[in-house]
Amino acid sequence: MKYPARKVFAYAASTVLVLSATTVFAADPLPSWNDSASRTAIIEFVETVTEEDSPDFVPVPERIATFDNDGTLWAEQPMYVQLFFAIDRVVALAPQHPEWKTQEPYASILKGDVGAALAGGEKAILDIIMATHAGMTTLEFEQVVKEWFATARHPGTKRLYTEMVYQPMLELLSYLRANGFKTFIVSGGGIEFMRPITESAYGIPPEQVVGSSIQTEFRMEGNIPVLVRLPKINFIDDKEGKPVGINSHIGRRPIAAFGNSDGDIQMLQWTKGGFGPTLAMIVHHTDAKREWAYDRDSHIGTLNKGLDMASASGFVLIDMKNDWKVIFPAVGE
Amino acid sequence: MKYPARKVFAYAASTVLVLSATTVFAADPLPSWNDSASRTAIIEFVETVTEEDSPDFVPVPERIATFDNDGTLWAEQPMYVQLFFAIDRVVALAPQHPEWKTQEPYASILKGDVGAALAGGEKAILDIIMATHAGMTTLEFEQVVKEWFATARHPGTKRLYTEMVYQPMLELLSYLRANGFKTFIVSGGGIEFMRPITESAYGIPPEQVVGSSIQTEFRMEGNIPVLVRLPKINFIDDKEGKPVGINSHIGRRPIAAFGNSDGDIQMLQWTKGGFGPTLAMIVHHTDAKREWAYDRDSHIGTLNKGLDMASASGFVLIDMKNDWKVIFPAVGE
Repeated sequence: MKYPARKVFAYAASTVLVLSATTVFAADPLPSWNDSASRTAIIEFVETVTEEDSPDFVPVPERIATFDNDGTLWAEQPMYVQLFFAIDRVVALAPQHPEWKTQEPYASILKGDVGAALAGGEKAILDIIMATHAGMTTLEFEQVVKEWFATARHPGTKRLYTEMVYQPMLELLSYLRANGFKTFIVSGGGIEFMRPITESAYGIPPEQVVGSSIQTEFRMEGNIPVLVRLPKINFIDDKEGKPVGINSHIGRRPIAAFGNSDGDIQMLQWTKGGFGPTLAMIVHHTDAKREWAYDRDSHIGTLNKGLDMASASGFVLIDMKNDWKVIFPAVGE
Repeated sequence: MKYPARKVFAYAASTVLVLSATTVFAADPLPSWNDSASRTAIIEFVETVTEEDSPDFVPVPERIATFDNDGTLWAEQPMYVQLFFAIDRVVALAPQHPEWKTQEPYASILKGDVGAALAGGEKAILDIIMATHAGMTTLEFEQVVKEWFATARHPGTKRLYTEMVYQPMLELLSYLRANGFKTFIVSGGGIEFMRPITESAYGIPPEQVVGSSIQTEFRMEGNIPVLVRLPKINFIDDKEGKPVGINSHIGRRPIAAFGNSDGDIQMLQWTKGGFGPTLAMIVHHTDAKREWAYDRDSHIGTLNKGLDMASASGFVLIDMKNDWKVIFPAVGE
């Protein structure tokens, strides 16, 4: 068979194109993501806002991306990580609180019946949080949190909690940062509970963590300045609180935001209300085999209104089962 | 005269040393600072924490420096810049408030007698702030602030307020950033009043500004998400509030802090209470000719306890008159 010159040239040219494409995009920035609508939405958004000739180009300082934590960056089932911590702390602190033996919700926890303790609802949870998160300095609390994360393990997977982060989301964080984004956590979880591990777990420094908080008070103890944690709510960074927390801490509106529950709706709305291109995504827990499958009827991470609103509001769903090749990072054997 | 070989060699060697020193330190990082104890304290501190072989080496992420704003980074006399803004806003909003013609403190302002208006003390100032800073969205307020800064001028110097920043402090900010520091503003001033200009005035982005705030509320107005500014105090970032604000926003203790008044003492104490090398400095307003001279008896920027404590607490004073070659930046003619 003879090759007409033009065809040979076309073949050679296409080879060159393929080669150069291979060179430029050598490393897939999102290797744990299947080719999916959610992956495409991410790539197209990032390419649009970083393309200098595009009318949708966004200068680097304005590339702000915010991430919910529980259920968005790491697992939240069967119970928030922070609640596992609080319950372990009740057990650890019990010798100093003999009255807890007969006082709910502590008595049930000490008998090993967490379900009965939590049956007291929000009031019980608030009591547990205040009893375990306040009454010490910020420095002491940080130390307690660090020590707990170093050894505590998830009852189901037996992994460290910092190994229950989502590998595809770690890749997304890195991909955004490689494209000039500043990544923030905006979580209903306690700000001081997250900060000791966000830098190592996610590459997010403490000053880029927004969360719920209790009040602190500055005191001089002799020559030693301390911040004492008080058993009073300061700020709840959930629902309508998320845009408020974002405004307070960041002072700029995100152009990209990622959540997984109805508590993230207002953050996604605030983001979509911006003037240029925006990306708002919801991690949808669809994978009963590799993680958990839950949405409308779950008590933790309820996603009900968010599912109804997603299409009309421009929220893009991430289907964990179909869009992600792996859920958790490989853990060294 | 004969030159012994050894002397010639010594001369040549010293010339080489001088030349190489000139090459290495070609650009003086603090050209507006006289050779002074304060300048030496800055240089020695930065060299210590950035010297990798030093036991006092501080990793880049922990190089946090915090700066008060009024009187530390820009002028605060004869009145805080934000109060000039508030008074101009009373005048601008007066047509929508016919009741202000007879209602204090507004009536005095509208008659041009700011002194009489402020004689009402803190209550009067709070009224003026709430009347001019609340009751609009964050976006609307930002626009008003930007427009004001573009044209309003200081009554004494006739400069734009953003030209009333201290040139030696701009150099200090740049020098610290060039050495891996993250620079933050921690001011008693309104966080949303500062943010629109901190990036252009100081190179400090909005997410690195900590300040006092009023409450905001998230609402959907139809399809438009807004944050509405409410006439309620949220946080006062002064005195004991400064370490609280630092902990809330930054989540790390600064290793360097700069203030000018008794309202900064707790921030300086919190900084000096850290475990490694620390630097805490006070800008002392000693220059009646080029700026203003005031400390113990001033109503604005009172520096009384701070002066008494400085030596024992390790706070280094910056003597504006003697330590600074210039106060304000050259302004294009």
